[in-house]
Amino acid sequence: MPRPSVRPQLVEAAMECFHERGFNGTGIQDIARTAGIPKGSVYNHFENKEALAGEVLDRYATSRRLGMLTDEELAPVPRLRAHFEYLAADLEHFSYERGCMFGNFGAELSNQTDLMRGKVDAGLVAWTDAVTRVLEEAREAGDLASVLTPGRLGQFLVDGWEGAVLRAKVTRSRAPLDNFFDVFDALVV
Amino acid sequence: MPRPSVRPQLVEAAMECFHERGFNGTGIQDIARTAGIPKGSVYNHFENKEALAGEVLDRYATSRRLGMLTDEELAPVPRLRAHFEYLAADLEHFSYERGCMFGNFGAELSNQTDLMRGKVDAGLVAWTDAVTRVLEEAREAGDLASVLTPGRLGQFLVDGWEGAVLRAKVTRSRAPLDNFFDVFDALVV
Repeated sequence: MPRPSVRPQLVEAAMECFHERGFNGTGIQDIARTAGIPKGSVYNHFENKEALAGEVLDRYATSRRLGMLTDEELAPVPRLRAHFEYLAADLEHFSYERGCMFGNFGAELSNQTDLMRGKVDAGLVAWTDAVTRVLEEAREAGDLASVLTPGRLGQFLVDGWEGAVLRAKVTRSRAPLDNFFDVFDALVV
Repeated sequence: MPRPSVRPQLVEAAMECFHERGFNGTGIQDIARTAGIPKGSVYNHFENKEALAGEVLDRYATSRRLGMLTDEELAPVPRLRAHFEYLAADLEHFSYERGCMFGNFGAELSNQTDLMRGKVDAGLVAWTDAVTRVLEEAREAGDLASVLTPGRLGQFLVDGWEGAVLRAKVTRSRAPLDNFFDVFDALVV
Protein backbone atom coordinates (compact mmCIF):
# COMPACT_ATOMS: atom_id res chain seq x y z
CA MET A 1 0.00 0.00 0.00
CA PRO A 2 1.51 3.38 -0.90
CA ARG A 3 2.47 5.64 1.99
CA PRO A 4 0.05 8.57 2.19
CA SER A 5 1.72 11.71 0.97
CA VAL A 6 2.93 14.04 3.68
CA ARG A 7 1.98 17.03 1.56
CA PRO A 8 -1.63 17.32 2.83
CA GLN A 9 -0.38 16.78 6.39
CA LEU A 10 2.02 19.66 5.93
CA VAL A 11 -0.66 21.97 4.58
CA GLU A 12 -2.96 21.07 7.48
CA ALA A 13 -0.19 21.64 10.04
CA ALA A 14 0.80 24.94 8.45
CA MET A 15 -2.86 26.07 8.45
CA GLU A 16 -3.01 25.44 12.21
CA CYS A 17 0.30 27.22 12.91
CA PHE A 18 -0.49 30.26 10.71
CA HIS A 19 -3.89 30.65 12.36
CA GLU A 20 -2.29 30.43 15.78
CA ARG A 21 0.82 32.58 15.37
CA GLY A 22 0.63 34.24 11.96
CA PHE A 23 3.17 33.91 9.15
CA ASN A 24 6.16 35.64 10.71
CA GLY A 25 5.54 34.04 14.10
CA THR A 26 5.68 30.54 12.59
CA GLY A 27 8.90 28.76 11.69
CA ILE A 28 9.32 25.84 9.31
CA GLN A 29 10.39 23.90 12.41
CA ASP A 30 7.01 24.60 14.08
CA ILE A 31 5.18 23.30 11.01
CA ALA A 32 7.34 20.18 10.77
CA ARG A 33 6.81 19.44 14.48
CA THR A 34 3.03 19.92 14.20
CA ALA A 35 2.94 17.61 11.15
CA GLY A 36 5.20 15.09 12.93
CA ILE A 37 7.81 14.97 10.18
CA PRO A 38 11.50 15.99 10.03
CA LYS A 39 12.16 19.63 9.20
CA GLY A 40 14.28 18.73 6.15
CA SER A 41 11.36 16.88 4.53
CA VAL A 42 9.35 20.10 4.32
CA TYR A 43 11.68 21.29 1.58
CA ASN A 44 10.99 18.16 -0.48
CA HIS A 45 7.46 19.51 -0.89
CA PHE A 46 7.70 23.30 -0.70
CA GLU A 47 10.46 25.62 -1.80
CA ASN A 48 9.93 27.91 1.18
CA LYS A 49 7.44 29.07 3.81
CA GLU A 50 5.78 31.47 1.38
CA ALA A 51 5.04 28.70 -1.15
CA LEU A 52 3.48 26.68 1.66
CA ALA A 53 1.46 29.69 2.84
CA GLY A 54 0.18 30.16 -0.72
CA GLU A 55 -1.16 26.61 -0.75
CA VAL A 56 -2.65 27.04 2.72
CA LEU A 57 -4.50 30.14 1.51
CA ASP A 58 -5.83 28.26 -1.54
CA ARG A 59 -7.13 25.56 0.74
CA TYR A 60 -8.63 28.15 3.09
CA ALA A 61 -10.41 29.80 0.13
CA THR A 62 -11.96 26.43 -0.82
CA SER A 63 -13.16 25.92 2.76
CA ARG A 64 -15.20 29.16 2.51
CA ARG A 65 -17.69 27.16 0.35
CA LEU A 66 -18.61 29.82 -2.16
CA GLY A 67 -20.66 27.09 -3.84
CA MET A 68 -23.33 27.70 -1.17
CA LEU A 69 -23.95 31.05 -2.85
CA THR A 70 -25.20 29.47 -6.08
CA ASP A 71 -27.36 26.80 -4.47
CA GLU A 72 -30.81 27.59 -5.86
CA GLU A 73 -32.57 25.42 -3.28
CA LEU A 74 -32.74 28.56 -1.15
CA ALA A 75 -34.05 32.00 -2.13
CA PRO A 76 -31.24 34.56 -2.52
CA VAL A 77 -31.49 36.44 0.81
CA PRO A 78 -31.80 33.36 3.09
CA ARG A 79 -29.05 31.71 1.01
CA LEU A 80 -26.69 34.63 1.61
CA ARG A 81 -27.51 34.67 5.30
CA ALA A 82 -26.93 30.90 5.54
CA HIS A 83 -23.49 31.41 3.98
CA PHE A 84 -22.46 33.90 6.66
CA GLU A 85 -23.96 31.63 9.34
CA TYR A 86 -21.79 28.81 8.02
CA LEU A 87 -18.72 31.03 8.34
CA ALA A 88 -19.81 32.04 11.87
CA ALA A 89 -20.18 28.38 12.90
CA ASP A 90 -16.66 27.70 11.62
CA LEU A 91 -15.31 30.54 13.78
CA GLU A 92 -17.25 29.30 16.80
CA HIS A 93 -15.71 25.85 16.31
CA PHE A 94 -12.33 27.45 17.05
CA SER A 95 -13.63 29.57 19.96
CA TYR A 96 -13.27 32.74 17.84
CA GLU A 97 -9.50 32.49 18.09
CA ARG A 98 -8.76 32.07 14.41
CA GLY A 99 -10.25 35.02 12.58
CA CYS A 100 -10.26 35.01 8.79
CA MET A 101 -7.08 33.97 7.04
CA PHE A 102 -7.68 36.53 4.26
CA GLY A 103 -7.82 39.24 6.91
CA ASN A 104 -4.91 37.89 8.93
CA PHE A 105 -2.57 37.48 5.97
CA GLY A 106 -3.77 40.73 4.39
CA ALA A 107 -2.96 42.66 7.56
CA GLU A 108 0.35 40.95 8.24
CA LEU A 109 1.82 40.37 4.79
CA SER A 110 0.57 43.04 2.36
CA ASN A 111 3.82 44.98 2.62
CA GLN A 112 6.02 41.92 2.73
CA THR A 113 5.08 39.80 -0.26
CA ASP A 114 3.25 40.76 -3.41
CA LEU A 115 2.45 37.08 -4.00
CA MET A 116 0.42 36.87 -0.80
CA ARG A 117 -1.10 40.32 -1.24
CA GLY A 118 -2.25 39.29 -4.73
CA LYS A 119 -3.70 36.02 -3.47
CA VAL A 120 -5.60 37.72 -0.64
CA ASP A 121 -6.90 40.33 -3.07
CA ALA A 122 -8.05 37.68 -5.55
CA GLY A 123 -9.73 35.66 -2.78
CA LEU A 124 -11.64 38.69 -1.50
CA VAL A 125 -12.63 39.74 -5.04
CA ALA A 126 -13.97 36.27 -5.89
CA TRP A 127 -15.95 36.21 -2.66
CA THR A 128 -17.30 39.77 -3.11
CA ASP A 129 -18.35 38.93 -6.67
CA ALA A 130 -20.21 35.83 -5.51
CA VAL A 131 -21.98 37.79 -2.75
CA THR A 132 -22.86 40.54 -5.24
CA ARG A 133 -24.37 38.02 -7.67
CA VAL A 134 -26.72 36.73 -4.95
CA LEU A 135 -27.78 40.32 -4.22
CA GLU A 136 -28.37 40.88 -7.95
CA GLU A 137 -30.58 37.78 -8.00
CA ALA A 138 -32.48 39.13 -5.00
CA ARG A 139 -32.96 42.47 -6.75
CA GLU A 140 -34.21 40.81 -9.93
CA ALA A 141 -36.68 38.81 -7.83
CA GLY A 142 -37.91 42.04 -6.20
CA ASP A 143 -36.51 40.97 -2.81
CA LEU A 144 -33.96 43.75 -2.31
CA ALA A 145 -35.28 47.24 -1.64
CA SER A 146 -31.97 48.79 -0.47
CA VAL A 147 -31.02 52.10 -2.09
CA LEU A 148 -27.51 50.68 -2.48
CA THR A 149 -26.50 48.81 -5.62
CA PRO A 150 -25.79 45.09 -5.19
CA GLY A 151 -22.11 45.84 -5.92
CA ARG A 152 -21.78 48.49 -3.17
CA LEU A 153 -23.77 46.44 -0.70
CA GLY A 154 -21.87 43.24 -1.56
CA GLN A 155 -18.52 44.89 -0.93
CA PHE A 156 -19.73 46.44 2.30
CA LEU A 157 -21.07 43.12 3.59
CA VAL A 158 -17.75 41.41 2.90
CA ASP A 159 -15.71 44.26 4.41
CA GLY A 160 -18.11 44.53 7.34
CA TRP A 161 -17.80 40.80 7.88
CA GLU A 162 -14.01 41.04 7.90
CA GLY A 163 -14.17 43.83 10.49
CA ALA A 164 -16.66 41.90 12.62
CA VAL A 165 -14.51 38.76 12.48
CA LEU A 166 -11.47 40.75 13.58
CA ARG A 167 -13.51 42.07 16.49
CA ALA A 168 -14.69 38.53 17.34
CA LYS A 169 -11.06 37.43 17.42
CA VAL A 170 -10.03 40.35 19.64
CA THR A 171 -12.96 39.86 22.04
CA ARG A 172 -13.10 36.04 21.73
CA SER A 173 -16.86 36.27 21.41
CA ARG A 174 -19.70 35.99 18.94
CA ALA A 175 -21.17 39.39 19.87
CA PRO A 176 -19.64 41.26 16.88
CA LEU A 177 -21.03 38.61 14.52
CA ASP A 178 -24.48 38.97 16.10
CA ASN A 179 -24.19 42.68 15.42
CA PHE A 180 -23.32 41.89 11.79
CA PHE A 181 -26.44 39.72 11.45
CA ASP A 182 -28.67 42.41 12.97
CA VAL A 183 -27.33 44.92 10.44
CA PHE A 184 -27.66 42.34 7.67
CA ASP A 185 -31.33 41.83 8.56
CA ALA A 186 -31.93 45.59 8.51
CA LEU A 187 -30.02 46.25 5.26
CA VAL A 188 -30.67 43.24 3.09
CA VAL A 189 -34.41 43.56 2.73
CA MET B 1 21.41 71.89 26.82
CA PRO B 2 19.98 68.50 27.79
CA ARG B 3 20.15 65.80 25.13
CA PRO B 4 16.61 65.12 23.81
CA SER B 5 15.36 61.82 25.12
CA VAL B 6 15.63 58.94 22.69
CA ARG B 7 12.38 57.50 23.99
CA PRO B 8 10.07 59.37 21.56
CA GLN B 9 12.51 58.59 18.74
CA LEU B 10 12.25 54.92 19.61
CA VAL B 11 8.45 54.98 19.67
CA GLU B 12 8.38 56.76 16.30
CA ALA B 13 10.82 54.26 14.78
CA ALA B 14 8.92 51.30 16.19
CA MET B 15 5.64 52.72 14.82
CA GLU B 16 7.18 52.82 11.34
CA CYS B 17 8.64 49.30 11.58
CA PHE B 18 5.46 47.72 12.99
CA HIS B 19 3.37 49.34 10.25
CA GLU B 20 5.79 48.10 7.64
CA ARG B 21 6.50 44.55 8.79
CA GLY B 22 4.19 43.78 11.71
CA PHE B 23 5.24 42.81 15.22
CA ASN B 24 6.79 39.41 14.57
CA GLY B 25 8.48 40.62 11.38
CA THR B 26 10.25 43.42 13.28
CA GLY B 27 13.33 42.86 15.43
CA ILE B 28 14.65 45.16 18.16
CA GLN B 29 17.67 45.59 15.86
CA ASP B 30 15.40 46.98 13.08
CA ILE B 31 13.89 49.49 15.47
CA ALA B 32 17.29 50.58 16.81
CA ARG B 33 18.63 51.02 13.26
CA THR B 34 15.57 53.05 12.21
CA ALA B 35 15.94 55.25 15.30
CA GLY B 36 19.69 55.58 14.70
CA ILE B 37 20.70 54.37 18.16
CA PRO B 38 22.59 51.30 19.42
CA LYS B 39 20.50 48.17 19.97
CA GLY B 40 21.52 47.93 23.63
CA SER B 41 20.08 51.37 24.40
CA VAL B 42 16.58 50.18 23.51
CA TYR B 43 16.57 48.14 26.72
CA ASN B 44 17.34 51.25 28.78
CA HIS B 45 13.88 52.47 27.82
CA PHE B 46 11.73 49.39 27.26
CA GLU B 47 11.84 45.99 28.92
CA ASN B 48 11.05 44.19 25.69
CA LYS B 49 9.45 44.54 22.25
CA GLU B 50 5.97 44.02 23.66
CA ALA B 51 6.31 46.93 26.09
CA LEU B 52 7.44 49.12 23.21
CA ALA B 53 4.53 47.92 21.06
CA GLY B 54 2.14 48.79 23.89
CA GLU B 55 3.39 52.37 23.92
CA VAL B 56 3.25 52.54 20.11
CA LEU B 57 -0.39 51.47 20.23
CA ASP B 58 -1.19 54.12 22.86
CA ARG B 59 0.34 56.73 20.63
CA TYR B 60 -1.53 55.38 17.62
CA ALA B 61 -4.81 55.58 19.57
CA THR B 62 -4.12 59.26 20.36
CA SER B 63 -3.44 59.98 16.68
CA ARG B 64 -6.99 58.80 15.82
CA ARG B 65 -8.22 62.13 17.25
CA LEU B 66 -11.39 60.98 18.94
CA GLY B 67 -11.68 64.59 20.16
CA MET B 68 -13.04 65.42 16.68
CA LEU B 69 -16.15 63.45 17.63
CA THR B 70 -17.13 65.85 20.41
CA ASP B 71 -16.44 69.05 18.51
CA GLU B 72 -19.83 70.75 18.54
CA GLU B 73 -18.84 73.21 15.81
CA LEU B 74 -20.21 70.65 13.37
CA ALA B 75 -23.61 68.94 13.42
CA PRO B 76 -23.36 65.25 14.43
CA VAL B 77 -23.58 63.55 11.01
CA PRO B 78 -21.11 65.84 9.15
CA ARG B 79 -18.84 65.65 12.22
CA LEU B 80 -18.80 61.86 12.10
CA ARG B 81 -18.16 61.88 8.37
CA ALA B 82 -15.31 64.38 8.82
CA HIS B 83 -13.73 62.04 11.37
CA PHE B 84 -13.66 59.14 8.90
CA GLU B 85 -12.40 61.51 6.18
CA TYR B 86 -9.55 62.49 8.50
CA LEU B 87 -8.66 58.82 8.95
CA ALA B 88 -8.87 58.29 5.18
CA ALA B 89 -6.49 61.22 4.54
CA ASP B 90 -4.01 59.69 7.00
CA LEU B 91 -4.11 56.39 5.09
CA GLU B 92 -3.68 58.19 1.77
CA HIS B 93 -0.61 59.94 3.18
CA PHE B 94 1.01 56.50 3.43
CA SER B 95 -0.24 55.33 0.01
CA TYR B 96 -2.68 52.93 1.71
CA GLU B 97 0.23 50.73 2.80
CA ARG B 98 -0.25 51.05 6.54
CA GLY B 99 -3.73 49.93 7.36
CA CYS B 100 -5.03 50.41 10.89
CA MET B 101 -2.74 49.44 13.74
CA PHE B 102 -5.70 48.18 15.81
CA GLY B 103 -6.60 45.85 12.94
CA ASN B 104 -3.02 44.83 12.22
CA PHE B 105 -2.11 44.05 15.83
CA GLY B 106 -5.52 42.49 16.49
CA ALA B 107 -5.09 40.10 13.55
CA GLU B 108 -1.46 39.26 14.26
CA LEU B 109 -1.23 39.23 18.05
CA SER B 110 -4.59 38.25 19.55
CA ASN B 111 -3.43 34.68 20.17
CA GLN B 112 0.06 35.66 21.18
CA THR B 113 -0.28 38.24 23.93
CA ASP B 114 -3.24 39.03 26.13
CA LEU B 115 -1.70 42.44 26.88
CA MET B 116 -1.92 43.48 23.22
CA ARG B 117 -5.29 41.83 22.69
CA GLY B 118 -6.62 43.77 25.69
CA LYS B 119 -5.19 47.05 24.43
CA VAL B 120 -6.63 46.58 20.93
CA ASP B 121 -10.01 45.67 22.45
CA ALA B 122 -9.98 48.74 24.71
CA GLY B 123 -8.98 51.00 21.80
CA LEU B 124 -11.78 49.71 19.58
CA VAL B 125 -14.32 49.95 22.41
CA ALA B 126 -13.40 53.57 23.19
CA TRP B 127 -13.65 54.44 19.51
CA THR B 128 -16.98 52.62 19.03
CA ASP B 129 -18.40 54.35 22.11
CA ALA B 130 -17.38 57.76 20.78
CA VAL B 131 -18.92 57.02 17.36
CA THR B 132 -22.09 55.75 19.05
CA ARG B 133 -22.40 58.93 21.11
CA VAL B 134 -22.34 61.05 17.94
CA LEU B 135 -25.08 58.87 16.46
CA GLU B 136 -27.12 59.27 19.67
CA GLU B 137 -26.75 63.03 19.36
CA ALA B 138 -27.92 62.81 15.74
CA ARG B 139 -30.93 60.75 16.80
CA GLU B 140 -31.85 63.20 19.55
CA ALA B 141 -31.65 66.02 17.03
CA GLY B 142 -33.97 64.11 14.70
CA ASP B 143 -31.17 63.63 12.13
CA LEU B 144 -30.94 59.85 12.17
CA ALA B 145 -33.82 57.90 10.67
CA SER B 146 -32.06 54.49 10.50
CA VAL B 147 -34.01 51.55 11.93
CA LEU B 148 -30.77 50.49 13.64
CA THR B 149 -29.96 51.69 17.15
CA PRO B 150 -26.97 54.06 17.45
CA GLY B 151 -25.11 51.27 19.27
CA ARG B 152 -25.61 48.70 16.49
CA LEU B 153 -24.89 51.21 13.77
CA GLY B 154 -21.84 52.60 15.61
CA GLN B 155 -20.29 49.16 15.96
CA PHE B 156 -21.04 48.32 12.34
CA LEU B 157 -19.47 51.56 11.10
CA VAL B 158 -16.29 50.89 13.07
CA ASP B 159 -16.13 47.23 12.00
CA GLY B 160 -17.01 48.16 8.40
CA TRP B 161 -14.26 50.77 8.47
CA GLU B 162 -11.74 48.21 9.71
CA GLY B 163 -12.71 45.84 6.90
CA ALA B 164 -12.55 48.63 4.30
CA VAL B 165 -9.11 49.72 5.55
CA LEU B 166 -7.85 46.15 5.31
CA ARG B 167 -9.14 46.06 1.75
CA ALA B 168 -7.48 49.41 0.99
CA LYS B 169 -4.20 47.97 2.27
CA VAL B 170 -4.55 44.82 0.19
CA THR B 171 -5.50 46.71 -2.98
CA ARG B 172 -3.31 49.78 -2.26
CA SER B 173 -6.21 51.99 -3.25
CA ARG B 174 -8.87 54.29 -1.87
CA ALA B 175 -11.71 52.48 -3.67
CA PRO B 176 -12.81 50.45 -0.59
CA LEU B 177 -12.93 53.66 1.47
CA ASP B 178 -15.06 55.33 -1.21
CA ASN B 179 -17.39 52.36 -0.94
CA PHE B 180 -17.51 52.90 2.83
CA PHE B 181 -18.47 56.56 2.37
CA ASP B 182 -21.21 55.68 -0.13
CA VAL B 183 -22.69 53.23 2.37
CA PHE B 184 -22.25 55.78 5.17
CA ASP B 185 -24.21 58.34 3.16
CA ALA B 186 -26.99 55.83 2.54
CA LEU B 187 -27.17 54.53 6.13
CA VAL B 188 -26.47 57.52 8.31
CA VAL B 189 -29.45 59.67 7.33
